[in-house]
Amino acid sequence: MAERVVKQARAERTSAAVLLAAAEVFAEYGFTAATVMKIADRAGVTLGAVYFHYRSKEDLARAIVTRQPDFVVPPDSSKGLRRAIDLTRTWARQLASDPMLRAGGRLVWEQDRFMHDAENSHQQWTRLITTDLQGAQDTGELRPGVDVSAMARLVVNACTGAQMHSYVESRHMDLPSRVEEIWRCLLPGLAATGGTEALEPR
Amino acid sequence: MAERVVKQARAERTSAAVLLAAAEVFAEYGFTAATVMKIADRAGVTLGAVYFHYRSKEDLARAIVTRQPDFVVPPDSSKGLRRAIDLTRTWARQLASDPMLRAGGRLVWEQDRFMHDAENSHQQWTRLITTDLQGAQDTGELRPGVDVSAMARLVVNACTGAQMHSYVESRHMDLPSRVEEIWRCLLPGLAATGGTEALEPR
Repeated sequence: MAERVVKQARAERTSAAVLLAAAEVFAEYGFTAATVMKIADRAGVTLGAVYFHYRSKEDLARAIVTRQPDFVVPPDSSKGLRRAIDLTRTWARQLASDPMLRAGGRLVWEQDRFMHDAENSHQQWTRLITTDLQGAQDTGELRPGVDVSAMARLVVNACTGAQMHSYVESRHMDLPSRVEEIWRCLLPGLAATGGTEALEPR
Repeated sequence: MAERVVKQARAERTSAAVLLAAAEVFAEYGFTAATVMKIADRAGVTLGAVYFHYRSKEDLARAIVTRQPDFVVPPDSSKGLRRAIDLTRTWARQLASDPMLRAGGRLVWEQDRFMHDAENSHQQWTRLITTDLQGAQDTGELRPGVDVSAMARLVVNACTGAQMHSYVESRHMDLPSRVEEIWRCLLPGLAATGGTEALEPR
């Protein structure tokens, strides 16, 4: 019994190490140029160990992309408009240093190679932001007539574009200020107050 | 004299054919996986002919990216806010079928490999949109207090993100409707009227 627990814990550690190594390799080489061998080498395990946990390179990439929201945890206390802002802020601050998020960013372009149509990263993030904006609308935080889903898609599109350009110009170091700027532009047309108060600390 | 003119015309045709072939190859394979040999094959010319006109793969990619705005020609008559909208609309409509624009979209992510910091595609497009929005601000088309450069960056970021996601979901076929949606979200906070009249035909 104790032995099985130890084995299981070891398997989970290996699986997590392989996923992290895959993220680092994808972030560095992109999906096409990455190989399972490079991932095994980076994780310090055998090729067999990788294939024990993941069926393929596609499987690894899919695991990283679908779990992106798990890696971005905004402060518990925020909700509505502030939570949508906090989500993008937390993501922007973590991106430069978190291999999982950097891999997610790098894989956006190539995700047609390994994701199914109905589960791409754009839709995932849009669902999260839509939920927060819907909450904001329900409590009267938004201007009347705001199309919540359309606005959520705009936020996700703008953040996607910002991370591309931020990567090219500063390797994601200036992403937090780019995300602040996006909200400063959007809030006057989005918040019921017409101002940018939601960006200020309470 | 006549012979020189003929030779020059032939050289220009070859140069244009090579650039178009390069765009097709970049759009299909991306920068890293593209090779000058693939480009020569696609253009139906020798490797020597490619190198007569372009020094390197980097040189070809740079030529395609820096000339992007030349390939997007909105209707002459529009100006100010309508011209900014027309520019993004024209780009969105052409993208699915124009290899030069598809290559431009595909190369966004990899442009640090061949562009200098001061001349990336984001800055190019932002300058164009800024000029149009500045014109709109000067004639009172915009809401007071709009930060024109920040808004231009937001438009370019949102369009970049939209084309990424549109590629994944529809190979750019739904990009025009995504760009319309972006403007429908932005105009209430951007136009002095607070409405989306600038999207309607005059």
